[in-house]
Amino acid sequence: MLQPESSPRARVPVDVRLNAIVDPAALGATPPAEAALEAVRGGATLLQYRDKSGSTRAMVSAVRAILAAVRGTGVPVLVNDRLDVALAAGADGIHVGQDDLPAADARRLLGPEAIIGLSITDAAEADGAGDPAVDYVGLGPVFATGSKADAADALGLGGTEAVARLIRAAAPGLPIVAIGGLGLANAADVIGAGTDGIAVISAILGAPDRRAAAAELRRAVDRALAETGR
Amino acid sequence: MLQPESSPRARVPVDVRLNAIVDPAALGATPPAEAALEAVRGGATLLQYRDKSGSTRAMVSAVRAILAAVRGTGVPVLVNDRLDVALAAGADGIHVGQDDLPAADARRLLGPEAIIGLSITDAAEADGAGDPAVDYVGLGPVFATGSKADAADALGLGGTEAVARLIRAAAPGLPIVAIGGLGLANAADVIGAGTDGIAVISAILGAPDRRAAAAELRRAVDRALAETGR
Repeated sequence: MLQPESSPRARVPVDVRLNAIVDPAALGATPPAEAALEAVRGGATLLQYRDKSGSTRAMVSAVRAILAAVRGTGVPVLVNDRLDVALAAGADGIHVGQDDLPAADARRLLGPEAIIGLSITDAAEADGAGDPAVDYVGLGPVFATGSKADAADALGLGGTEAVARLIRAAAPGLPIVAIGGLGLANAADVIGAGTDGIAVISAILGAPDRRAAAAELRRAVDRALAETGR
Repeated sequence: MLQPESSPRARVPVDVRLNAIVDPAALGATPPAEAALEAVRGGATLLQYRDKSGSTRAMVSAVRAILAAVRGTGVPVLVNDRLDVALAAGADGIHVGQDDLPAADARRLLGPEAIIGLSITDAAEADGAGDPAVDYVGLGPVFATGSKADAADALGLGGTEAVARLIRAAAPGLPIVAIGGLGLANAADVIGAGTDGIAVISAILGAPDRRAAAAELRRAVDRALAETGR
């Protein structure tokens, strides 16, 4: 059955205002579930577990622990790249990069209820946001970052604004979360550049008080969104 | 419904006589599908794709290409560890190590038709073969090998024979494929130690004529199996 062109997505938009990415490489001895819960208590609206070096079994354990920790909060828990880990742990979805599973394959394997995020790093990739399998876009890196070894070139605020426009054209209404080198100092700027929220690793995980750091970031995002009228 | 104890597995046993493991790290410029097809033409009875460094998308492409190349031969294509890659590519199953997904989780996610292999590296792990989700065991490393960076300590022929007995006790009739430093020179010895076949990487992938190497290995295994009366 054809869907009316004006509503390609009937689902509730993903709340991307504060996307806390939990990477054990940035956590030291803290259990990922503890850090995730602190982030959520502070105001994170979306969690992503990202692990580029652990065993599959360790990843599944970590994601199960995170799901148990934040159960009842309503905050979705996604897994970076690894659909197998998401399935085994019962996560809410996955976030895929351009070298990961195509979003359409992920949708086919995860079903209609899963949340699927897609990384977009430049203008040439913006059309990918039009894939109906995609629920939100992670746009960046906005600035250079030490948290991701294989990150693409930084877009800067101007580049972020330009690519965000292209994403809006390809997928009106699709949430866009900015990522890369973001924190309190520049959260308002990237919201002003046309994004709907920020994704952070070190700004929360690296803070002495993760809950307080998340709360400050969330206030900055909410204030900036209110100022832009979004 | 309870199954009669004498037949915990109603499925046709996996033919593990010659398990060719295709690892792009051991292939140089040769496409994995080309090497896989040569191995099958030579007599490989089971294929496993193992990639510890590629992107998820590249792995899915490689497995799809292998499946297309060997279609119609009846030789199953498994993926090491990555259930997401197996699902996306439509592979015949996966092979899991002790740090990968538990076999029971893999069975739940892959369904009853999938083939699931389990690595067993020592006596303490032998009971894992009794898991009804397991279709065959990879036992090793028999000898030290350069093909797997994180391999456990070598069992030697004596250790292999001892652990194979424990596996037989835990799971009568379950196929056991020996792995680790195997080739023409010792294929008969490991079959004599109570295994049903050999898994190789470099003995096929590193050979100047992969098809001929596979054919020689297969003959050696078949001869040894005939001599043991299995």
